[in-house]
Amino acid sequence: MKLNKEAQELNEIFQESPEVYEMLSDFGKRIYFLESGVLAQSWEAREKAFRFNATLGEAQSNRETIYSRTFHDAFLGFAPNEVYPYAPPAGLKELRQLWLEKMLRENPLFEYINISLPVVTTGVTHGLSLAADLFLNPGDRVVVHDKHWENYELIFEVRNSAIIETYPMFVNNSFNVSGLENCINACQSDKVFVILNFPNNPTGYTPAMKEAEEIAAALVRCAEAGKKIVALCDDTYYGLWYNDEVIHESIFGLIAGSHPSILAIRLDGATKEHFAGGFRVGFITFGGKSGEVLTALEKKAIGTIRASISSSSRTSQAILFKILSDSKYTQELMEGRQLLCERGKEVMELIKKGSSKNLWNAYPFNSGYFVCIKVSKNARRVRDYLLSQYGIGVIAISDEDIRISVPCIEINEIRELFSILDEAIESA
Amino acid sequence: MKLNKEAQELNEIFQESPEVYEMLSDFGKRIYFLESGVLAQSWEAREKAFRFNATLGEAQSNRETIYSRTFHDAFLGFAPNEVYPYAPPAGLKELRQLWLEKMLRENPLFEYINISLPVVTTGVTHGLSLAADLFLNPGDRVVVHDKHWENYELIFEVRNSAIIETYPMFVNNSFNVSGLENCINACQSDKVFVILNFPNNPTGYTPAMKEAEEIAAALVRCAEAGKKIVALCDDTYYGLWYNDEVIHESIFGLIAGSHPSILAIRLDGATKEHFAGGFRVGFITFGGKSGEVLTALEKKAIGTIRASISSSSRTSQAILFKILSDSKYTQELMEGRQLLCERGKEVMELIKKGSSKNLWNAYPFNSGYFVCIKVSKNARRVRDYLLSQYGIGVIAISDEDIRISVPCIEINEIRELFSILDEAIESA
Repeated sequence: MKLNKEAQELNEIFQESPEVYEMLSDFGKRIYFLESGVLAQSWEAREKAFRFNATLGEAQSNRETIYSRTFHDAFLGFAPNEVYPYAPPAGLKELRQLWLEKMLRENPLFEYINISLPVVTTGVTHGLSLAADLFLNPGDRVVVHDKHWENYELIFEVRNSAIIETYPMFVNNSFNVSGLENCINACQSDKVFVILNFPNNPTGYTPAMKEAEEIAAALVRCAEAGKKIVALCDDTYYGLWYNDEVIHESIFGLIAGSHPSILAIRLDGATKEHFAGGFRVGFITFGGKSGEVLTALEKKAIGTIRASISSSSRTSQAILFKILSDSKYTQELMEGRQLLCERGKEVMELIKKGSSKNLWNAYPFNSGYFVCIKVSKNARRVRDYLLSQYGIGVIAISDEDIRISVPCIEINEIRELFSILDEAIESA
Repeated sequence: MKLNKEAQELNEIFQESPEVYEMLSDFGKRIYFLESGVLAQSWEAREKAFRFNATLGEAQSNRETIYSRTFHDAFLGFAPNEVYPYAPPAGLKELRQLWLEKMLRENPLFEYINISLPVVTTGVTHGLSLAADLFLNPGDRVVVHDKHWENYELIFEVRNSAIIETYPMFVNNSFNVSGLENCINACQSDKVFVILNFPNNPTGYTPAMKEAEEIAAALVRCAEAGKKIVALCDDTYYGLWYNDEVIHESIFGLIAGSHPSILAIRLDGATKEHFAGGFRVGFITFGGKSGEVLTALEKKAIGTIRASISSSSRTSQAILFKILSDSKYTQELMEGRQLLCERGKEVMELIKKGSSKNLWNAYPFNSGYFVCIKVSKNARRVRDYLLSQYGIGVIAISDEDIRISVPCIEINEIRELFSILDEAIESA
């Protein structure tokens, strides 16, 4: 069993209690909490970023979290029976139905495919681990673009002992479709678990319709060549699009039902999309199979929930259900997105202008929460320098790249950050 | 791989989509949702029990869920930053601290042992699956009393591929301490995962102090003989005690620190204990090791949370934190428990009286949510008969036993149920 550095360090503490170490499962020996990861960097920035903090996966305006007044008012006036008892493992039926209707309304492509009733998860992460449990054995391959959320490693590799295979996400500032296809075909086994995350964390990239169709076509070619593909669409940042060129619906609609050997899974939620991450309401939806098979998959998902957390918060579900069909709420969500869109457009302008000294380059950005910038010096040093000298918090996601959270800083702070970036990289 | 009947039936649906079936992991092939289980029986009873429904794991009074007014009022007046953003994976620090203080205040035995800061889980079930992930490899042994929550099988066997070994929970109406000890010693491997659940689901049994000490001493003897014991205390129903003889604190306090080869884990939560199951706030706490080892275990738990659900509902945590130090809330909780205690005492009276026709026998009952009754006819038939003929919902947990939920029916309904039980068994 290969252990990474963080796990080894953590395990050394058990030298004084070898009995306890021997009690740990293989997973127990592998698991760790990344001290230098996004969360830890973010906590440090919370303390030290005296100017502003662009590390958070959270939308803010005037330092207050962006939220919906209607959402907040929904806390009032519940009958006790609506909030205190357990929800069913699958979630509140009426909420699942309403979410399905929302999906169908917003995604015209979904009209042509069979999709299951969404099952409620405790946030999108729960959907990721649930899909991993259902489809991944140790050693199975997970194909994902090289730019992805760091937690994928913890979930798919550390937790489920699968092996992540990556390909460069971009060629010539476009999505690397042939990279994806080659990566799938290079897997030895027939079964391949493919993740597509648009808008992407950390780059803030969403493909245009033509690119999205090419991605879907590549998956079909792989399936025709004999691959069995679980295609997981991580739609955490769904809806946060900043121009008209990008596909304004989930790519799930192009993938589901495209080939018998392709199973499409959609993960989305009222977390980032609804400015309410702390409520932990996500959904997992299966698509493109017969109604019976979709129901069987639903039941598999429900059993997995029952065996891991019993059920998700009823309170959160009750609140979401109450407001989801309220037009005032929709209006407020739109206003929140509009605010983010203005910031997003500003970022697009600034990265188009680029570095006057050629010291940094942004990856394609047109949507989502984050913009990712490749810097010409060690990114961790640049991150430390920005924090200590300027009081500005950003995340170093590798030695090369920094990640800036767009929704958690104001538009003038975005300008400020880009205006000092050259200087900071030079001096770091 | 051995599949049980429910999983086989569910898997047959995939015959029309063999590609999808092949995509499932071994776990995915094993998992099912028990159609005839407690939840399904309970849903049927919700529809059909026109008189009353004693199937629910939920406390009610006048058909309304028992809840705290202070808890309900706590929905108001939150600053958005307090509820919408993500909580840390470990939970809100201030809530964890407050819960630790509550534990120490209520459990005098805890004074003598090192315990970790509790880590927030999404309900107690999440604590069970988290402990299973950390300590169980496929084939590892889980020793538990034969009367236990049905979901243990799904969690420990189906999900984590461990093997449950049971022993008869009672001899002569006392806890079967030597049965426990023999069961542990009969396990081939050194490592044994032992679960103790008091107050017990489904019997409503809690040991007296002397019995609890004997249980703890038995574990020490096993450890001295070379066993490495993970002792998991499932304290879901903690605090709901109906007489003065039973131990009025967690048995965790007797087990933690009793031997280097024993690791004690406590699971509890503001679910059943606080009449707020739907909020999904549980805690996992480690005990009896050095501070450093406990912190390392905390980090293992936090990593596991990050890899499975990211974090638990912040909203639920914020509400609990707000009210936990409010004396009005404590008072209301006490009133809720008092109400349950009155019903519990009534049940104790009725089972002491027993069946006039010798048609049923209750297992020892003195605490918790449920009373479990062995009936002289097939329990599933008795359950069906009670539902269809009397409009009374109870759960058949096996062919022999029915389980009655005490907190979800009124005191006169308890009397009514026991008054017709002989008749119903005779006619069933």
